[in-house]
This record gives sequence, structure tokens and C-alpha cells, in this order.
Amino acid sequence: MKIAIAQLNFFVGDFDGNLAKMLKAVEEAKSQGADLVAFPELATCGYPPRDFLEFDDFIRRAERSVQLLAEAAQGIAIAVGSPSRNPVIEGKDLFNSAYFLEDGKIKHVQHKALLPTYDVFDEYRYFEPAKEFKVVEFKGQKIALSICEDLWNLGNENPLYTVVPMDEMMPQKPDFILNLSASPFTYKHAKERIRVLKANVQRYKLPMIYCNQIGSQTEIIFDGGSLVVSPDGTIFEEMPYWQEMVKTFDLDTVVKGGQNVEQVKEKIPLIHDALVLGIRDYFGKLGFKQAILGLSGGIDSAVVAVLAARALGEDNVRGLLMPSQFSSDHSVNDARELAINLGMQYDIVPIEPVFNSYMTALEPHFWGHSFNIAEENIQARIRGMLVMAISNKFGNIVLNTTNKSEMAVGYGTLYGDMCGGLSVLADVYKTEVFELARYMNKDGIVIPENTITKPPSAELRPNQKDSDSLPEYDILDAILYQYIEKRQGPTEIIAMGFDEKTVRRALRLVNINEFKRHQAAPVLRVSPKAFGVGRRIPIVGKYLS
Amino acid sequence: MKIAIAQLNFFVGDFDGNLAKMLKAVEEAKSQGADLVAFPELATCGYPPRDFLEFDDFIRRAERSVQLLAEAAQGIAIAVGSPSRNPVIEGKDLFNSAYFLEDGKIKHVQHKALLPTYDVFDEYRYFEPAKEFKVVEFKGQKIALSICEDLWNLGNENPLYTVVPMDEMMPQKPDFILNLSASPFTYKHAKERIRVLKANVQRYKLPMIYCNQIGSQTEIIFDGGSLVVSPDGTIFEEMPYWQEMVKTFDLDTVVKGGQNVEQVKEKIPLIHDALVLGIRDYFGKLGFKQAILGLSGGIDSAVVAVLAARALGEDNVRGLLMPSQFSSDHSVNDARELAINLGMQYDIVPIEPVFNSYMTALEPHFWGHSFNIAEENIQARIRGMLVMAISNKFGNIVLNTTNKSEMAVGYGTLYGDMCGGLSVLADVYKTEVFELARYMNKDGIVIPENTITKPPSAELRPNQKDSDSLPEYDILDAILYQYIEKRQGPTEIIAMGFDEKTVRRALRLVNINEFKRHQAAPVLRVSPKAFGVGRRIPIVGKYLS
Repeated sequence: MKIAIAQLNFFVGDFDGNLAKMLKAVEEAKSQGADLVAFPELATCGYPPRDFLEFDDFIRRAERSVQLLAEAAQGIAIAVGSPSRNPVIEGKDLFNSAYFLEDGKIKHVQHKALLPTYDVFDEYRYFEPAKEFKVVEFKGQKIALSICEDLWNLGNENPLYTVVPMDEMMPQKPDFILNLSASPFTYKHAKERIRVLKANVQRYKLPMIYCNQIGSQTEIIFDGGSLVVSPDGTIFEEMPYWQEMVKTFDLDTVVKGGQNVEQVKEKIPLIHDALVLGIRDYFGKLGFKQAILGLSGGIDSAVVAVLAARALGEDNVRGLLMPSQFSSDHSVNDARELAINLGMQYDIVPIEPVFNSYMTALEPHFWGHSFNIAEENIQARIRGMLVMAISNKFGNIVLNTTNKSEMAVGYGTLYGDMCGGLSVLADVYKTEVFELARYMNKDGIVIPENTITKPPSAELRPNQKDSDSLPEYDILDAILYQYIEKRQGPTEIIAMGFDEKTVRRALRLVNINEFKRHQAAPVLRVSPKAFGVGRRIPIVGKYLS
Repeated sequence: MKIAIAQLNFFVGDFDGNLAKMLKAVEEAKSQGADLVAFPELATCGYPPRDFLEFDDFIRRAERSVQLLAEAAQGIAIAVGSPSRNPVIEGKDLFNSAYFLEDGKIKHVQHKALLPTYDVFDEYRYFEPAKEFKVVEFKGQKIALSICEDLWNLGNENPLYTVVPMDEMMPQKPDFILNLSASPFTYKHAKERIRVLKANVQRYKLPMIYCNQIGSQTEIIFDGGSLVVSPDGTIFEEMPYWQEMVKTFDLDTVVKGGQNVEQVKEKIPLIHDALVLGIRDYFGKLGFKQAILGLSGGIDSAVVAVLAARALGEDNVRGLLMPSQFSSDHSVNDARELAINLGMQYDIVPIEPVFNSYMTALEPHFWGHSFNIAEENIQARIRGMLVMAISNKFGNIVLNTTNKSEMAVGYGTLYGDMCGGLSVLADVYKTEVFELARYMNKDGIVIPENTITKPPSAELRPNQKDSDSLPEYDILDAILYQYIEKRQGPTEIIAMGFDEKTVRRALRLVNINEFKRHQAAPVLRVSPKAFGVGRRIPIVGKYLS
């Protein structure tokens, strides 16, 4: 049997577009001689649809797509993910389902049993878990059809569920496993995915066809990397990351094994490529072409400019240099050099006259009070406003350049440098931003060396440096990683050997700045724990604060 | 048996404060002669703790509180909600539990079975559902102990769960039902709560003691309104809303029935009181005293100013009047009159000089382009910045005055009038804001009559009126209510008789403005479907847009 994996990029809510893309892939799979083509989880409506699932209208449209796909299942069978209705009044109203379509009809529907409800996932918000498990018979083979998380309760120290769906299917003696996924990227995920899939194949001694989606959905990025695993547990093929592709595999060949195609899995290149895709899809799906950002001469804005130029083309990225009286000469020079290296448009708008107009307006109210955070924030906010003004006039989207270390400790100004439609680096620690910059320069200088080597500074008061108010970034990032990614508390982190005062201060800063993150732009997620939808912390709380 | 209901206001993560408050209530209950005192759901750590639950350190602190409460359970028993650990490795790591403490020890733990995972609730994110149900014996009575949602699978057309925990307990012949809740306010909730509790009492013919918390947790407001229901299904007593109170009830008297104390449930007064509590707790728990807001002379800022003055005292509310060249005379006059009526501080800062400084700075870039949304937004953003500047200098929190109709259709400027630490009215439709204003004026004019009667305008260009770009608010709000609260799609709403073009335009505006709401301040929730944590819509989507 020949099975095509359709690793495609869907658009949440775009039923017509998603359907057209799938119908084209069906034709492509047929031309490759496939007997069966597999699409990802919830492919009809796009994943994650979130609360759109609460609209009956939305479900009707998904049902219509399934019906039209079924009609196209002639001479080829189709496995596709789509929501379906729960006919039982008790429980949630929907299932997250895998449809098996053959000869113009819906032949079988298998619902998802394990509903991820953690981090960025909210599936139990919408779906009732499957309680029945039944293989599909097709061309003399029995297929164990499952959806994404259904395979993920194996091979973990701390299984999240009390059921293992494949264990329930095994008495029916399936011949192979077919899994439809929408499994998001993190820089660690490809390795984990392979570990979990191998754990399944080793337990059940069955070949596995695993179809994942690619593409970015607001903040959540999908890498693709669909997998074909031989029954001996070796990877037969890992399809490319970041690309749409329809590729057909002969099950007999897969069973024999012996092929081993794997993608390279290096953290910094993966993050780089994920962010490029994240920017490209955010703009493309929203129907925008042009980005704008403030160029400070610092490393964060430089790295974002390079990513944007690679995602959108350098002609579609515009930089604004907005020096103040506190800006050093090198700031403008470094920013200009970057723009020239990239070949992108840049404009210089000094902010001092606007700053002075605010000072005049506020003089009666600020009289007798010394320069403090208020004046620092005014500078950052003028810059934010100027960038927003040009974006409003010319239809660009503003890219936010905050990194994860700043975002964590609140080292940024709301409505100032926190402006933007998309936060590109807010899941990348400062130390990783340096690594990204070095990686970008590997084939020749794009980011000026001085931008990389000079001490980071917000330049909002004379001779300011980040290290005046924050620990050195290598220490800070290590503490933040333990707190954010690893959910370690102060006791555990101090026991690792970090300075107690520094740890308590860092954790306190993270917690008291939740109010800022609440109003941040969506953050492209590349780590196992990003700020945003996957990390839900009370703003009003008194914990470690 | 005498049972005290401790309807208290907890603070998420403040273990010491919450414990001290409970220990004081234990003494109060003892002095009232109670045999048993009941505290709300997750009272040790505060509800909702959200992802703080993922920290082992957080759970250890909750366990310590339970231990200390157990030690205090001498001469009185205590029922209290707190997280507990799941000893089984499969499944989630925690339970949402009701502890029964007696004679210095933990006598019994009953876990919650029905885990709300919809709207603002994410409980299956953290907790494994209970599979065992066991009554507690205390002083010769059997108590059916349960937590909040456990009672809510009865009396609904569309039950969300397949289990009814009380059905599981009934074979053990309990004598009464004791429920520990953290059940949030909406203007419809008190009636629903009574309906559901009556459905339980009518089915099981048992008296019910229902303890709810009060207080606001960022955006989610709890009204209290704890209930005692006689076995014939009549309300014996509904405790007051918005107040902490420890009150003891004699079970024998409750069984006899005949008392009927209920609170008044009128929508606008309830919303008014909820918002006052919401503001008061946001400031109080964060340790702030003073609010600032822009006063435009319009109805939204007027209503917010009144609410803030009632929550914080008029001495703690400061208004900024920021007229532009497009402001009408009456704007400043109406705003000034309001401030004088309230006795609050106000300052006037004209924005034209700052606006001109931006125009000068942007002139080389805007040259040849006509006045449009960019210049409108600059005005709104200057106002936002001025308010933020004063808040940064003097330590006020900025109150956002956006209403739900504007928030829905994106009629507001990011980083401009959408600034603020707390969004007071963004769950109150414009038509309801008018009702609130009338209600505030019922005992004498606070809000100037002209503010209520003049046509709403953003005054960002000459003679602008909201109705230039939006449908009249009574039509718009009715459509929005069907779409947002009722999750009706375009087909259903048009079938109700609304103009098709208006419906499609309104729904499109709601969906394409998700990016703005993503960066909005937290919204005090008073309706069954508020913007924010309870409504999760993709920013990048193509549905009805």
C-alpha cells in the first residue's frame, strides 16, 4: 500500500482555502500513485481554532468540507482531521476526529482520546475524549488511526493520562499506525517527537505514518517534520521542516526498513528558521507585506531586522532611527550600517523636539520632581508612537524587538518599546539573541560587530547600561530558564548554587511584571514555555512578589 | 449541628494572609457556637491560582496551610478547599480538593470530579477528576462534601459532564450537602446559581450549605451570595453580596425551613457594585491607592470616574482633561463639571503643542499624504502618554475607559485610549453604560446631563460622531450580544431580522480587531462572556473576516 503524507500549511477559519489546498494535494497524491493520502489534525478548519469551535456556523462549515473531501475520495482514500459532533447530550458537544473517507463516503470516524490541556493547548475546553477505539480496514490492511496526543502517553516519566489509546486498539491486530497531528515546534520538540514515536513503535512493533502540519498560527509555529518509522524502531524518513510537501511512501518498503533520512536538529538554526516562518505567515495570512521597526543600534532590533528581511524581503522592511540626547554616536552609526548591509530603507527621526514638547506640557505638573522613570518612559513611548504613526500611514506592521530576558523582568516600557503587532524575540533569551546574531553573521557580516560586542543599553539616561539594573545576562537567563521553563521555585534554584538575593529579585521581577506581559504583542513561540497563551499567571497575586 | 459559612476574600498566592484570615474566622465561628466552619474552594492559595499550581513550591505552601488549619481544628471542625497531590503517576499531578479537618488532623479529603474547562476556567489544565466519592461522618451526621462545579451537572439543557457526583454519593445516605465554591459573578449568575442549587435539593431532598468566596481576582469578580437551602427546595438564606461575613446556621432550623432571605438581583445595580469591588480589590491587592484617568467629557470616562471615586474615595482619583483643536467647548465644560460634582482633582493639559511637534517630526515622511487614521491615532496616543506619564511620576494606576461595544469593533486606539492598568467598562456595552449613568444619577446629578444626552464622539476630527462609522448603539449592541454572549453566527443573527450588511460588517469588525484586544488591559468581567481570558479567538484567522 502506498500512503501519501500531505504536510501542509493551513489557515484557521479559511475553509475554502484549506479545502482547495487539500483537493490539490489529493490530485498530487494520486499522481504519485498513492492509495491513501493523510492530512493533519483539524485540517479542515486549521489548528488551533480556539473558541471559533463554539460557533455552530463554524462546525457546519467544517462538516461541509469533510463532505466535499469525501466526494473527492475516488480512486484514493483520505484520512483527515476535522471536528465532529457528539450525539450524546452529556459531555462536551464536539469530538476532535480523524475521518477516513473512501469511495465518496465517510467510512469511519475515530475520535481523539487524549486531549492536551496544558501549556498552549486547551482541547478539553471543546472536546469530549473518545471512549471507543476501532481500527479501519482498507485494502486488506487494518489501520490504527489516531490523532496527535493519542500517541504521547508513552515514554514519559510522568504520563498525563490514564489511558493509552494504542493499547485499546491492539486486540484488533492493526497492521500499521496512522497518526494525524498538529504538533507545535519548540527547539526541543523534534527530538522529543522522535523519542515518543519510537517508544510507540518499539512497544507495538508496527510501522508508523505520522503526518504533521507546518505553518505559523499567530504565536504557535508548526515545523512539519512528518515521520515514517519502520517497525524495528528506526526512522525511515523525517520529512523536511518549514516546507509544504506531499510525499508518498510504500508501506512494504517502510516495513523492510534500512532507509534513514533525518533532519539536522541544531537549536539556533531551528530557532532562526522558525522565526522567519513565524514572521512570514503572520504577515502573509493577515494580508500584509511590509514591516517597520525601530533600529536602536542594539542587538535585538538588528536581529529582528535580519529575520524580517529574510522573511519578507529587504524591500519590505523599514527601519526608523530615533536618537535622543542620550543616544551615543555609535547607536546611529551601528543602526545605519545594519540597514545598509541589509539594503533596507531607513529614516532618522530625532525625538528630542517631541520630548521637549511633552516636558513643556507636563512642566506645571512635574515641577519640583526630578528626572525618573516617567521621563525615561516618555522617550520610549515617543519612539513607539513614531513607529506606530508611520505604520498607520503606510500600512506596515510594527515588529516588536523585546527579548525574553527583558520580557521576563519587565525591562521595557508599555506602549513604548513594547509596541508592535508581533513580538519576534520575546521567547528568545538575551544570551540566545547573541547566538542568533553570530549565526546570522556566519557567512559574512550582516550585523555590525560593534552591535554584538558593545554592552547592552536602553540609552534612556546618560551612560545607562542594562547591567546597572539587572544581573549579567548569563546569570539572569540561567535563573529565568529554571523558573520559567523548568517551573523550579526559589528553594530549588538557590540550591543549584545561584546567589539567593539575585534569585529572589529575579523571580519577584518576573511576577510583578505580569501586568506588562498581559498587554504585550503575541510572542512567536520557540521554547517549551513561552510567554503568552501557554503561560497563565495571575496579574493580581502575591507569590514570590 | 451548627455550621458557619466563612464567605471571605482571599488573595491568590498570599498563603500567610489567607491563613491568618481563616484562623480568625475559625475563632469567630467558635464564638458563634459553630460545630463546623466551611471555607471556599482553594481558599489556602486563593482562586484562581492558574499556573502557579505548576510550582511544587506553591503546592508545598498550600499543604503547610492545611496542616496549620488542621492544628487549629480543636473544638470545631473545618472544611476547606486546597490543592492536593495525585499519588498515582498516570494522570494530572494534582486534585482540587475539599479537606475535612477535625481534632487536629486531616480526617477526610474529597476531590472535585467536575473540572470546569470553558470560559474563564481551566481546571483540567491542572487537576485529575475524582473517581471516588465518600461521605464524611461528623457528630452523627453524614456530609456529602463537594466542590463548586460538582453540583452543576443538574438542571441544564446541555450537561457538560457524563458524571453526577451527588448521584454517586447518594447510596451512602448523606444527611446534608456541603459545597465549597469559588463561583464567579456575572449579572446573571445569582439566579442561575439558585436554579442549579434548587435542582440539586429537589432531586436529593437534602438541606444544602453552599459557601462561596467574595472578592475580585484581576478580572474575575466573586460576589459571595453564599446559600443555605432547606430540603423542600426553598432558599433559607442567601448571604449578602460583596461582603466578607462569617455566619452560623443551625441545621435543624434549616431543615424546618420557613425562612426566606434573598438578595435583590437587578442587573444594573449588580454591575455597578461588582465594578466598584473590582476596582477596589485591583488597587488594594496590588498595594496602590490612587487612580488617574483621562476625562473627555464623554459618558464612558464619566462613569469610570464615578466608579473609581466610589471604590477608592474621590481624593484618590485624578482626572486629566486633554482638549485638542477638535474638542468642542462642551467637552471641557462637561468634564470639569463632573470633576467638581465628584470633588476629585483635575488638570487640563492641551495636546495641540505636542501634536504639532509630532507633525513637525513626521513632516518629511508624511509629506503629500492627507490627514487620516495616523493623525487621529497620534492624538489618542498623546493623551495615553500624558496620563501614563503622570501615573509614572506619581504612582497612580491608569483606569481604562473603553466600553464593550468599542472593544468589540476595535473603535479605539492601541497605546492611546486603550492604555491603562485595568479596563473598567470593557464588559459593559455602550447602551448599558448609559443605564449605569442614569442609575448613578438616581439620587442627584453626579454625571452632567449633557454628558448623557449628547451624541457620542471620539472628537479626533472635525464634527466626528461615533455614528459616522458605527451603527447606532442599540442595533450594534444587540448584534454583538448575539455574536459574543450567545455565539450565534451570521445566518442565525440575520434570521432574527437584523440587516444583513450591518451584521456582516459588525462580525467582521469583531474578528479583525482581535489583535487590539490581545493587548488590552485586563477587563473586569460582569457578563457571561467577557473579552479576555474567557474568550480565546485566533488573531490570525480568516473566519467571518
